Amino acid sequence: MTDRQKISFQDVRDEVLERIHNRVWGQGDLLPTEQDLSEEFGCARATVNRALRELAERGIIDRKRKSGTRVALSPVKQAKLEITLTRQLIEDRNATYRYALVRCHQVSAPGWLASQVGLTPCAPVLHVQAMHYGNNQPFQFEDRWINISAVPKVTDADFSAVGPNEWLLAEVPFSTAELSFGAISADEDLAEYLSCAVGAPLFQMERTTWFQAQPVTFVRMSFHPGYQMRSRY
Amino acid sequence: MTDRQKISFQDVRDEVLERIHNRVWGQGDLLPTEQDLSEEFGCARATVNRALRELAERGIIDRKRKSGTRVALSPVKQAKLEITLTRQLIEDRNATYRYALVRCHQVSAPGWLASQVGLTPCAPVLHVQAMHYGNNQPFQFEDRWINISAVPKVTDADFSAVGPNEWLLAEVPFSTAELSFGAISADEDLAEYLSCAVGAPLFQMERTTWFQAQPVTFVRMSFHPGYQMRSRY
Repeated sequence: MTDRQKISFQDVRDEVLERIHNRVWGQGDLLPTEQDLSEEFGCARATVNRALRELAERGIIDRKRKSGTRVALSPVKQAKLEITLTRQLIEDRNATYRYALVRCHQVSAPGWLASQVGLTPCAPVLHVQAMHYGNNQPFQFEDRWINISAVPKVTDADFSAVGPNEWLLAEVPFSTAELSFGAISADEDLAEYLSCAVGAPLFQMERTTWFQAQPVTFVRMSFHPGYQMRSRY
Repeated sequence: MTDRQKISFQDVRDEVLERIHNRVWGQGDLLPTEQDLSEEFGCARATVNRALRELAERGIIDRKRKSGTRVALSPVKQAKLEITLTRQLIEDRNATYRYALVRCHQVSAPGWLASQVGLTPCAPVLHVQAMHYGNNQPFQFEDRWINISAVPKVTDADFSAVGPNEWLLAEVPFSTAELSFGAISADEDLAEYLSCAVGAPLFQMERTTWFQAQPVTFVRMSFHPGYQMRSRY
């Protein structure tokens, strides 16, 4: 790197990456201190700090307050998936969002649901089915159960106007969740909702949401054929 | 919280979550300082710090060095997916891993691949197809292209012994990648490789990997019917 021009944190990051790639610094090796690197590169220590922070977030180096920074032994790759509202997914594709309630009724939790999310068998749940459209094309069928004991107000909600995901996010914004992704075949109902052939391969996402230790909701989202979810790391 | 017993960072985290949930602190509100919270809860400031760090990582609060900590305006949920070797996925299921090379030959990059990853059309690439088994059941079919200009050594690699993913991870450990997930129907080849019916719905993951600005590899991984990928946030 030349010292004639201002050194950016990206320059430092790329140079460090290059040295790790070329095994100047091998896996497990201790890196020079931020002070030493900032002197070598002729930049502020904060610039080095920002570069190293990014490499640490990507799992490339390990930073320990007392023992210093080392090249990671095995890069654990963590992909980040931004989980947003279906409305957002559709609007991000520059399409017009439309929502339609299919049905909503109170039932006793079926056995599979109770064991899936850790509910008392036969606990009262609200079963909501809804469709999400982009430019009037079917985008996603939402099949959701909500634990009434966790969110008693849900029995007053009007899901013909606002989707249950948006309603829940406003009521219980800070939950934790478990996700699973897979592929299924469209059955007759899904084929009708998503205007596709029976047997078409569909990407499906399931999510169980808790607030603290209490199960709040379980949802199964089936996407139109050809849908792809994207991520980087 | 009682001050008779030792306050853990989980206690502080849950109390802060509870107050946010009950709108004691609403979206965008400034939280008390770490010092004030540690006095109120009767615990070390480091305990408060650890609790707040976790809530910040989950997107529930925003911490700014100068302007303090606020309840996040809109919780952006980021799910983390751990991307590991197929060997690891299988061994995590307590199954015995087996790998088999199907074919490996040098070709000119087809047009779709060149445009997909940003290669010169007809650039030399290595096309590798391989199977991954768990307890001798087909687990994943791997269909991979490797940019020879980016990794010239790849022409000497012996992919009958070690899978291309493990080989690449050793050669180019610190790359960035773009992922996409979706569902496809098994064609005749995939049905044979994965011992399933033609037309069975398969979960498929595609990944393009770069080292700095250079495309390294593109892979399409098709999983056996019923496979689910899991994550939490």
